Amino acid sequence: MSEKVVLETPVLRKNDELAAQNRAWFAARRCTVLNLMSAPGAGKTTLLEKTLPRLAARRRCAVIEGDLQTDLDAARIRATGIAAHQINVNSCHLDARMIAEAALRLESESPDLLFIENIGNLVCPAAYDLGEHWRVTVFSAAEGADKPRKYPRMFHQSDAIVLNKIDLAPYCDVSLDELLESVRAVSPHAAVFPLSSRSGEGLEPWIEWVAAREVR
Amino acid sequence: MSEKVVLETPVLRKNDELAAQNRAWFAARRCTVLNLMSAPGAGKTTLLEKTLPRLAARRRCAVIEGDLQTDLDAARIRATGIAAHQINVNSCHLDARMIAEAALRLESESPDLLFIENIGNLVCPAAYDLGEHWRVTVFSAAEGADKPRKYPRMFHQSDAIVLNKIDLAPYCDVSLDELLESVRAVSPHAAVFPLSSRSGEGLEPWIEWVAAREVR
Repeated sequence: MSEKVVLETPVLRKNDELAAQNRAWFAARRCTVLNLMSAPGAGKTTLLEKTLPRLAARRRCAVIEGDLQTDLDAARIRATGIAAHQINVNSCHLDARMIAEAALRLESESPDLLFIENIGNLVCPAAYDLGEHWRVTVFSAAEGADKPRKYPRMFHQSDAIVLNKIDLAPYCDVSLDELLESVRAVSPHAAVFPLSSRSGEGLEPWIEWVAAREVR
Repeated sequence: MSEKVVLETPVLRKNDELAAQNRAWFAARRCTVLNLMSAPGAGKTTLLEKTLPRLAARRRCAVIEGDLQTDLDAARIRATGIAAHQINVNSCHLDARMIAEAALRLESESPDLLFIENIGNLVCPAAYDLGEHWRVTVFSAAEGADKPRKYPRMFHQSDAIVLNKIDLAPYCDVSLDELLESVRAVSPHAAVFPLSSRSGEGLEPWIEWVAAREVR
């Protein structure tokens, strides 16, 4: 893979420059940006569906949806009454250029809290700064307690980690204590929110954390 | 992303050449190779743990385990009495060069059925031919019925699709009929095996399919 490392370095350097520009552009508009990352099916969209209505009184929200195919997720977000822009990309991650373009489409909404739902992938998105202020990893308890140690980079870089679908743990032989230990081992600094978007259990501390985010 | 596409083309071309060499090398040794791909936590290792002992009387098996970090999976496979070689890579996918090197480590075992457990990632591994004869996507029903349409490439390229963790479907509001329809839409030609590695339900047809695989 030495070739690939050599080839990708300039791509990542250019991405970092664009991400810094994005961050300044968002800050000038007092728009706080959260980058939500996860494996496919960890429940990012459902988490947003449950979170957005409860933020509506306090923050003006908008969402950028990244997917390889379909606009199913943007349609789900719009059904909550929140502005959403879908981008479909032939890529395993979002990058700063895609966000620069998508942000312009939502500028007229003047959001003060912008969520970016990244491509479902627990590996590649971690390497691409989008110009966000806060990084969040969403993890499904059904994926198993060993995964944070096996895919440490995304967890390590996150400010917050949502342990979603905790209601499924008993049906998957997953120990929540073991999962929390695994998360703490790779990401001792992150805020951790065990919850179930489906049942609503544990949502409150997560929503309070999000509501308090500011540009940094 | 135009840069990235341009840069990756020679990498993929070289990979395809090495994959063709691998395929010939395996065929010369009458070793049938299956490439197992999935998102993180879909249950590839557990499926192998349940499958390998039931093949032992008929096939001489071995496993190449790909992970970013840890050798947890190879240890789990060895506990079943089957030879396993772990590779740890700083990459979002396995490639043909990694397999060429790993296959040499298992040559003395003379396997006639070699499983490759790819990195947990529903996007990138689909672009890299490893020199396998059969491609399998393992999907967890807990990931949601919409995912095959959202991540179609891996499903479309697979000879077989294992719909794992079907016992979780009722706890996730996932309709198996809808999931099957979604799979059929993107992959009408594949053999589809709904099963639960945990409960054992539906394992038999999958094991019969695997046992009958030959070099092609």
